[in-house]
Amino acid sequence: MNILPDSELVLIPGESLLTRTPEEGRALAILIAQHTIHNIQPDLDILEAGRKLYSVDPDSLIAASQVVAIEFQTIAAANNYWR
Amino acid sequence: MNILPDSELVLIPGESLLTRTPEEGRALAILIAQHTIHNIQPDLDILEAGRKLYSVDPDSLIAASQVVAIEFQTIAAANNYWR
Amino acid sequence: MNILPDSELVLIPGESLLTRTPEEGRALAILIAQHTIHNIQPDLDILEAGRKLYSVDPDSLIAASQVVAIEFQTIAAANNYWR
Amino acid sequence: MNILPDSELVLIPGESLLTRTPEEGRALAILIAQHTIHNIQPDLDILEAGRKLYSVDPDSLIAASQVVAIEFQTIAAANNYWR
Amino acid sequence: MNILPDSELVLIPGESLLTRTPEEGRALAILIAQHTIHNIQPDLDILEAGRKLYSVDPDSLIAASQVVAIEFQTIAAANNYWR
Amino acid sequence: MNILPDSELVLIPGESLLTRTPEEGRALAILIAQHTIHNIQPDLDILEAGRKLYSVDPDSLIAASQVVAIEFQTIAAANNYWR
Repeated sequence: MNILPDSELVLIPGESLLTRTPEEGRALAILIAQHTIHNIQPDLDILEAGRKLYSVDPDSLIAASQVVAIEFQTIAAANNYWR
Repeated sequence: MNILPDSELVLIPGESLLTRTPEEGRALAILIAQHTIHNIQPDLDILEAGRKLYSVDPDSLIAASQVVAIEFQTIAAANNYWR
Repeated sequence: MNILPDSELVLIPGESLLTRTPEEGRALAILIAQHTIHNIQPDLDILEAGRKLYSVDPDSLIAASQVVAIEFQTIAAANNYWR
Repeated sequence: MNILPDSELVLIPGESLLTRTPEEGRALAILIAQHTIHNIQPDLDILEAGRKLYSVDPDSLIAASQVVAIEFQTIAAANNYWR
Repeated sequence: MNILPDSELVLIPGESLLTRTPEEGRALAILIAQHTIHNIQPDLDILEAGRKLYSVDPDSLIAASQVVAIEFQTIAAANNYWR
Repeated sequence: MNILPDSELVLIPGESLLTRTPEEGRALAILIAQHTIHNIQPDLDILEAGRKLYSVDPDSLIAASQVVAIEFQTIAAANNYWR
């Protein structure tokens, strides 16, 4: 096993849902989605083997992007949509 | 059968959706998702056999992370997004 | 055919989305999800045959837990998140 | 072809999202979900052939119940959760 | 290739989310969902080949109806649920 | 590898969720969904190979349109539904 460092296991990197810009909010959505998966499967070797599969499969890419969309709904609402 | 202890079957561990920090809220989202599955399938042997499958399948990991994202929407709203 | 009793076909058991605690709200979410399936497929024999499949398949368990997460969003909002 | 009658193709039966009770709201959610499918596929013979498949497949039943859960979110919000 | 006319590629037909009735709102939800797919795949021949598959597959019909349910959440909120 | 230009990797093109019209909001939803996938898989050759698969598969098209529907929920709320 090749366990990820603790920094990759923080559930909410930066400890807040508030960001200055939509761009930063979107980056946070991606990061939160990734770190959730890190917590379910913290073995980097298995994650890298999985990446070889999902990153070339359009259905997997669509599914991954949907998770980011859902995380972003939460972050955008938290930030009053950066209005 | 190897039934989980009662503590693993509590639906809302801590009996509240309110947490001090987003990090704790996210941990609660993961816990609630897990305990829902424990209630549907309380046999630890079956759960561990299932973990061997889903924890190495990227599509399963994406699906699991989506459930956490949905639970977190509820918890984040409950906490007024920890603004 | 082995049709479920009427009590298993009530769509909203208790006739309200309001509960005293998050734990009761979560239990209601599970119940509502189950009773929806009962209404689509009221034959207990078919349901029990299905349970043998989905209850040992991690992807099915993840999918089932997602439905509960969505029902719970509604119930939690109805209860102002038990703040 | 064996086309459904017009009454099965109305998108929002009753022409309102407001109902007196959660039970009626849930029944409306199921009806709206069904009528959407009727509009996509109005041939009763094909629908009945499909029902033979999905009504005995637990993954299909879970997927169908998820659509009802999403429709119900809308209807429950419309009714201020029948508080 | 047999490209759809421009009218089938408008993303929000009618240029507004506001409708007079829930029935019209639901019809708009279906239209928006269809036009999104038209924008991803504007070749009518491919769309018609796809329709032969998904319109007789109950899992595809359930998936399609879920997209409509999500679009309708947005439209119903925009219209304050036609209260 | 044939990496996408930086402009295709911006997470929120235009740096805002606010748009003048629903049509522009919908176009932004599509763009954000695409750019998320670009960030997960930035190799244009792999993306184009994937497009050959998902763009002719009705289930993939339905899944892709669902992601757009979810992104649009966020953008529509940000814009107070362009009321």
